[in-house]
Amino acid sequence: MSKKVIKYLEEHQEQHFQALNAFLSIPSVSTDPVHKEDVKKAANFVKEYLDTIGFEKVEIQSTGGHPLVYGEWLGAGKDAPTVLLYGHYDVQPADPLELWDSEPFKPEQRDGRLYARGASDDKGQVFMHLAVFEAFMQTEGMLPINVKVCIEGEEEIGSEHLYRILKEKKDQFNADFAVISDSGMVAENQPTILYGLKGFTGLEFTLHGPSSDLHSGIYGGAVRNPAIAMAHVLASLKNQDEVVGVSGFYDQVESLSQAERELIANVPGEDFKTTIGITETISEKGFTTKEHTMARPTLEVNGLYSGYQGEGTKTIIPATATAKITCRLVPGQEPDHIQELVIKHIENHTPAGVKVDIKKEPLSAKAYKVDPDHSLIKKAADSYTKAFGKETVFVRMGGSIPVVEWIDAIYDMPIVLLGFGTPNDRLHSPNESFPIENFQKGMKTLVYYWNAIQDN
Amino acid sequence: MSKKVIKYLEEHQEQHFQALNAFLSIPSVSTDPVHKEDVKKAANFVKEYLDTIGFEKVEIQSTGGHPLVYGEWLGAGKDAPTVLLYGHYDVQPADPLELWDSEPFKPEQRDGRLYARGASDDKGQVFMHLAVFEAFMQTEGMLPINVKVCIEGEEEIGSEHLYRILKEKKDQFNADFAVISDSGMVAENQPTILYGLKGFTGLEFTLHGPSSDLHSGIYGGAVRNPAIAMAHVLASLKNQDEVVGVSGFYDQVESLSQAERELIANVPGEDFKTTIGITETISEKGFTTKEHTMARPTLEVNGLYSGYQGEGTKTIIPATATAKITCRLVPGQEPDHIQELVIKHIENHTPAGVKVDIKKEPLSAKAYKVDPDHSLIKKAADSYTKAFGKETVFVRMGGSIPVVEWIDAIYDMPIVLLGFGTPNDRLHSPNESFPIENFQKGMKTLVYYWNAIQDN
Repeated sequence: MSKKVIKYLEEHQEQHFQALNAFLSIPSVSTDPVHKEDVKKAANFVKEYLDTIGFEKVEIQSTGGHPLVYGEWLGAGKDAPTVLLYGHYDVQPADPLELWDSEPFKPEQRDGRLYARGASDDKGQVFMHLAVFEAFMQTEGMLPINVKVCIEGEEEIGSEHLYRILKEKKDQFNADFAVISDSGMVAENQPTILYGLKGFTGLEFTLHGPSSDLHSGIYGGAVRNPAIAMAHVLASLKNQDEVVGVSGFYDQVESLSQAERELIANVPGEDFKTTIGITETISEKGFTTKEHTMARPTLEVNGLYSGYQGEGTKTIIPATATAKITCRLVPGQEPDHIQELVIKHIENHTPAGVKVDIKKEPLSAKAYKVDPDHSLIKKAADSYTKAFGKETVFVRMGGSIPVVEWIDAIYDMPIVLLGFGTPNDRLHSPNESFPIENFQKGMKTLVYYWNAIQDN
Repeated sequence: MSKKVIKYLEEHQEQHFQALNAFLSIPSVSTDPVHKEDVKKAANFVKEYLDTIGFEKVEIQSTGGHPLVYGEWLGAGKDAPTVLLYGHYDVQPADPLELWDSEPFKPEQRDGRLYARGASDDKGQVFMHLAVFEAFMQTEGMLPINVKVCIEGEEEIGSEHLYRILKEKKDQFNADFAVISDSGMVAENQPTILYGLKGFTGLEFTLHGPSSDLHSGIYGGAVRNPAIAMAHVLASLKNQDEVVGVSGFYDQVESLSQAERELIANVPGEDFKTTIGITETISEKGFTTKEHTMARPTLEVNGLYSGYQGEGTKTIIPATATAKITCRLVPGQEPDHIQELVIKHIENHTPAGVKVDIKKEPLSAKAYKVDPDHSLIKKAADSYTKAFGKETVFVRMGGSIPVVEWIDAIYDMPIVLLGFGTPNDRLHSPNESFPIENFQKGMKTLVYYWNAIQDN
């Protein structure tokens, strides 16, 4: 059944690139008010494509910000599973323009890649889904399963209105599982299933000493220095073995099974040391760097400031010292609870002579993880392997994707993160691109996958 | 012999205030090129005053920057001691002007104080010396001892050219001892001899992690965070008992004798907690705050920065973290040696995964201390007590005065720090002032002192 669909895709490659080029040529930069109409145009592109290939109830939904495109095809019947497909049609700004080798909104193929802003993130990947649906409709007259499509226009500005809409339109958007193609493979041509994301909590705190900077000669020896007090507090938060010192921090962390350690060990280890300019990696005692980045919680100081920052010397005892801290969380860790534990730790470790003032970061996210043995995941992996001719690896990621947490929290359905980008796509940077081969192999993966789901 | 001189000063009070007002009305702000001519005018004022009262070889010496005024009176003969009197005629800028209750360069007497920029620091105190010399000359026809006067115009900008001049003109400036009236009493009407100053050394260091800020989700768990590494280094430099952790730091520190601990305990303890906005003082374990500020070395972080400092959260691992550190040193501690010890400590405590880059602060100063039992100091204390009607206290100070270190290093002569300012003079701030009573009592002190020296 897949053969006919794949043949259609192969025969319509040229037309599809033309359509994708038209989509990529729209500068739908969501953060820039100048591009408000372009964002609408890109939404329209998606709407019209869905209309053309035979989706129903296709509509541009207003959100309060940039619109969201919804469409559905439920012709597979009540007994067939329904998927909610999420993607986004908005893109990051293209500047600095002078660093692009070709124009960001004039797609150009060279060296086996398609260069354009959005080629990988996420217009290219959204379009692959559209083309595959088209191929099924044109060859089979139907899709193997029921499909609800939700393509938003605010991902690059924090998906400001999406959470409310997902909540309010639960009946409309509800499905048996979700598929998101907005991530990537761990290496070129390495089929990759992302089955876990970290959660997130943060705070900022200030240690207040004297009411203004003091002369270090007059007061040095009588007054606690907030910058040194800060050093003691921060040093107590994470030791030199990269173990977080906050009491209770690891209490709810699921221990890493041998099976999962093997899954993680199988992920090809890209040597990023040279790329990021470090001489050695460091990870939590007892865990590999891959285990720590993928599956163990972290605590980082993101910003730190106190006293004089200009040229040369100013002999002061600073009035204050401030640090910004975020934690990346794993399943089991409740963001609010962890935030409270960190706050308690800071309060308990603030030395005499300074006062602490803590500001909670209101945004937070829970970690997400789907069982890598779940049949929906297994089938995705098998389809991926079949299309790319290489064993699929399973990874967890240290980052958070808000929409994943929201779909998980509101719909409580499995989420399949099926991404076709590569580490060399330069997302959010000049010369964003996508391997042309991955369009073909990615679409094949999707054809196999929808058929595999139907065969359930 | 003092009586006649003091009577002269009492009878000429009005004239002296008129002359001092003229001196204070010249905005000799050394840091501001706009006031270059005013600085010259103030130098001229000093020169002319010295000429008028009968000093010899009075000259305005060019320095490469603002000029220095030199004059001498050596009529006391070869067997009489010679003093080098140091002071400065330049002043700090007056801004913010709107915070002054009267104009900074229109001296005004109110509530028992003379308000003007420079009233205390240091024109007022320089003028007291001039008036006292005048009174001796007018009543006795001579001074009790030989006097060399060196009044510079660059103190408020770091005495940039003074060191070279003190070295080059050693024959001209050499004396048996030096007197400097550019400091203050520990409390209003509390005769105070400053017999020790701290030295100083400093450095700045940066911990380099990745070559640019990293995504804390992708790399958190694999990369050493420079801000946290910095916290560990700084925490190791000074513990929570305020003890410096640098190996060898205290090795050359003279232990505090019981006699000196008593001297320090006798210094009236002003409660500065409310003034500077702290709830409790903190000092080195085993030492009182007065002992620590006056007589024990300190290490302070003066500035600290890393990563994101804006509003809200940015989930990064910062590329670098930088700290500025200075130490205040006591006699026995060589600045360069201590700087090397701190550097070694930082290098040894920099954790794996970050590289350290250290920038030495080129300026440094050795601590200065004169024996409080030295006869020149004893006589100063007795004169002070006699004039103010209150027992003199002996203090050491946490600050450094470069000229003291230079005179000590180049001339190796005792330095008597005989200051008449008060803690409420608001040096360098709006509404600088000087207690009118202290002009009288201070000049009496000087009359007694010069006579006491002569009686040697």
